[in-house]
Amino acid sequence: MARWEPDARGRMLAAALDLFAEKGYDKTTAGDIAARAGVTERTFFRHFADKREVLFAGPTALDEVVAEAIAKADEAASPLEMVFAAAREGAARIAEQRTREQAARRTRIVQANPALQERELLKMAAMRSASQKALAERGVGDPAASLAAHSGVAVFQSGFDRWVSGETDLSLPECIDEAIVALHDLT
Amino acid sequence: MARWEPDARGRMLAAALDLFAEKGYDKTTAGDIAARAGVTERTFFRHFADKREVLFAGPTALDEVVAEAIAKADEAASPLEMVFAAAREGAARIAEQRTREQAARRTRIVQANPALQERELLKMAAMRSASQKALAERGVGDPAASLAAHSGVAVFQSGFDRWVSGETDLSLPECIDEAIVALHDLT
Repeated sequence: MARWEPDARGRMLAAALDLFAEKGYDKTTAGDIAARAGVTERTFFRHFADKREVLFAGPTALDEVVAEAIAKADEAASPLEMVFAAAREGAARIAEQRTREQAARRTRIVQANPALQERELLKMAAMRSASQKALAERGVGDPAASLAAHSGVAVFQSGFDRWVSGETDLSLPECIDEAIVALHDLT
Repeated sequence: MARWEPDARGRMLAAALDLFAEKGYDKTTAGDIAARAGVTERTFFRHFADKREVLFAGPTALDEVVAEAIAKADEAASPLEMVFAAAREGAARIAEQRTREQAARRTRIVQANPALQERELLKMAAMRSASQKALAERGVGDPAASLAAHSGVAVFQSGFDRWVSGETDLSLPECIDEAIVALHDLT
């Protein structure tokens, strides 16, 4: 791949967020995004299957990040400690890829569109299922693996929602930690 | 509505499970289900939007059941106690509607079909979202409401999976209680 490609990808991601906010998700085409980013439609489709995937594309899928984090977790860690470490790792990757402002804009676009909300739910389900599988490979049986996987997604989602809420200056990993404390307080 | 209708509905639900297992979900039509149940296609479509909805139709939607249970929960109950009571209530309703064998067959059909799995995930998401909203109406703020709602779905799903696994003779509500204990042990 040519040297300029990573930059083109970043420009398409930014252009998509701008256009979805300006024109609305439904009225924006892949061609619009390509034009705004200064690339051809062919380049767009080399990177993304469709305009929806621009919102869900990252350098690494979240389910792979959490699976890796659980696989390399400390020998002595409990199932919950493993999934919390995975949620922190996922958060760290997201914070590298997107500013809070970008993440908040993306969240507003997703919330406004039922098809995108479904896609987001599937992403969270994939994260949960990958966590459960990774825990099983670490010797954690059910129901512990299933329940811990749910808890990992819970703190991730709760921390993420808080981060993009505009009500805090905490970083995303700090918001995850806050959610972990809140879950402890609850139980 | 005519007197025979509830019975026709039950026959269609049973016929659909039989046919999905025999012919496969994709190859079964609404007409096949109607014929097997001894009703007209028109009757089928008066009850269900399409063949998929036969698998997801219940007298009451799970999200409404849990919302009601949280609304009527004891004044002194903690957020977790409220969602656990809701999970038990949802389980009790399901156990009234389906035998374990029927639920297990339905689960096998859903697991074999990605589109049905997505629909099932959306059902669980609706249950979570309804729980979170009902908790908010009981004065529980976020992140507690969000985290508790996740925990409610976690014990429901874990208990349900156990119930249909064929590895236990416990009733569905008992499996939910087992999952609640397992979640306590985890934390």
